[in-house]
Amino acid sequence: MLDKVVIFGVGLIGGSFALALKQAGAAGQVIGVGRSQATLEEALRLGIIDRIGACDAATLGDADIVLLATPVGQMPALMQAMAPHLGPQVAITDGGSTKGDVVAAIYRNLPRHCPRFVPAHPIAGAENSGAAAAKADLYVSRKVVLTPLPENDADAIERVRAAWATCGASVHEMPPSRHDQVFAAVSHLPHLLSFALVHDLAQRENREEFFRFAASGFRDFTRIAASHPEMWRDICIANKTALLGELEQYQRQLEELRQALLDDDAAALEAVFAEARTVRRAWDEGTLV
Amino acid sequence: MLDKVVIFGVGLIGGSFALALKQAGAAGQVIGVGRSQATLEEALRLGIIDRIGACDAATLGDADIVLLATPVGQMPALMQAMAPHLGPQVAITDGGSTKGDVVAAIYRNLPRHCPRFVPAHPIAGAENSGAAAAKADLYVSRKVVLTPLPENDADAIERVRAAWATCGASVHEMPPSRHDQVFAAVSHLPHLLSFALVHDLAQRENREEFFRFAASGFRDFTRIAASHPEMWRDICIANKTALLGELEQYQRQLEELRQALLDDDAAALEAVFAEARTVRRAWDEGTLV
Repeated sequence: MLDKVVIFGVGLIGGSFALALKQAGAAGQVIGVGRSQATLEEALRLGIIDRIGACDAATLGDADIVLLATPVGQMPALMQAMAPHLGPQVAITDGGSTKGDVVAAIYRNLPRHCPRFVPAHPIAGAENSGAAAAKADLYVSRKVVLTPLPENDADAIERVRAAWATCGASVHEMPPSRHDQVFAAVSHLPHLLSFALVHDLAQRENREEFFRFAASGFRDFTRIAASHPEMWRDICIANKTALLGELEQYQRQLEELRQALLDDDAAALEAVFAEARTVRRAWDEGTLV
Repeated sequence: MLDKVVIFGVGLIGGSFALALKQAGAAGQVIGVGRSQATLEEALRLGIIDRIGACDAATLGDADIVLLATPVGQMPALMQAMAPHLGPQVAITDGGSTKGDVVAAIYRNLPRHCPRFVPAHPIAGAENSGAAAAKADLYVSRKVVLTPLPENDADAIERVRAAWATCGASVHEMPPSRHDQVFAAVSHLPHLLSFALVHDLAQRENREEFFRFAASGFRDFTRIAASHPEMWRDICIANKTALLGELEQYQRQLEELRQALLDDDAAALEAVFAEARTVRRAWDEGTLV
């Protein structure tokens, strides 16, 4: 039982964490903190939080668990602001999609509390955001990746792991750098590519005609281009090094395909497409090795 | 009423055309022709076609409508083979995803019949293919784009339009070159990009770890990478010029994003993402202008 849960940022990620813990009967009281009073009042009205708190000792001093669920770009300042008010028994976690930058920010801004901060990435993004998008079952059967620090106390890891598991997630562990490498490839790059395609088409003078004939393949490919711009800006900047590596490798792959097209090299195109299809299907069927 | 319908290629596109016409009671008999005896027998067993025909006068001489639903790369040879056997009253259409190449092939291989050939592109791709994937409602509420030739007889256009409309489609018209430009942007390039991403990941030594953490955004982005390799090879080669133009424009867009990342230009990234999100949402809501 977590008597006191404090959530910074009661949007999709934070709000769903609150609702899931409440639904499981695992949270005594849930307190929301955030920069937007309107969002906090909406969360209160929706029953996501029990009351609105502040970044002070009254809110944080006796908290059992604190979740940072703001865009990653806001986390360093937030950590600095909360540092003087945290109690010794708190466990802290976050919902950021990048981990190397969060870990660096912890060492820089919460040095005394790093045994208590267990970074996490709930893999439950959606193109919707905000308190109204939060739901109690967002994390059910989703993965949450913890990237524990060498300094972490065992009981803090266990409390954070249990909280995410209570939300219905399957909890995994990975070093932060590996996490960022993997997610640059399977999440951050695809978002960048999807944003880029829609932006490219949006510049056309007669864009309405292009979009009129876009069909289901385009719809799926560009669903993630409706994601939150500020959040994805922060993710890209935070995971710049790994993302640049992935982007450059992808640019080389595109250049090879362009050359194959220029050369009418049908066999080269088909080889790329066939391997992609085989692997995509195996992944879907759970038979990829 | 179409007394005799002949379909070359009884896969997803051809088989669904057959099933839709049959369900509407609009087809007397449906005859399948193809290079794979096994597929034809499967189509016969599934009730998609009434019998198996050949590319000869007995099959084609008194056909009311002929649909070419093979990969576009096979169409020129097919047109040559059918030319001597077609009757004067037939109307011909096709299901190719590219139109400039089909039009050129008609002029080259079916010069006497070009008044009767009304090229079409049913926008109803799916990542599944083959006779087993065919379904009577595939075209319901989908768009079919006709790219009529200046030489087309009015009654041939009308018969082809009516057949696709009977399948449930909303029928549009466009010049072939405009068609190919629009679909290079909203269909062919996204397929190429999706295939490229999966292929790129498939080359990694530890690809299983990457794919294990791929989530719903990746699933949607790469759904079209499970599409038919031979079909998409043909589409890319057939629409090479327009596709190369789109690919190169996209490569420039990616290079701008790479530069913004390198420069930590968060504002530039956010501007691209925000415009993409706005346009993608407006498209989804039908409010794009």
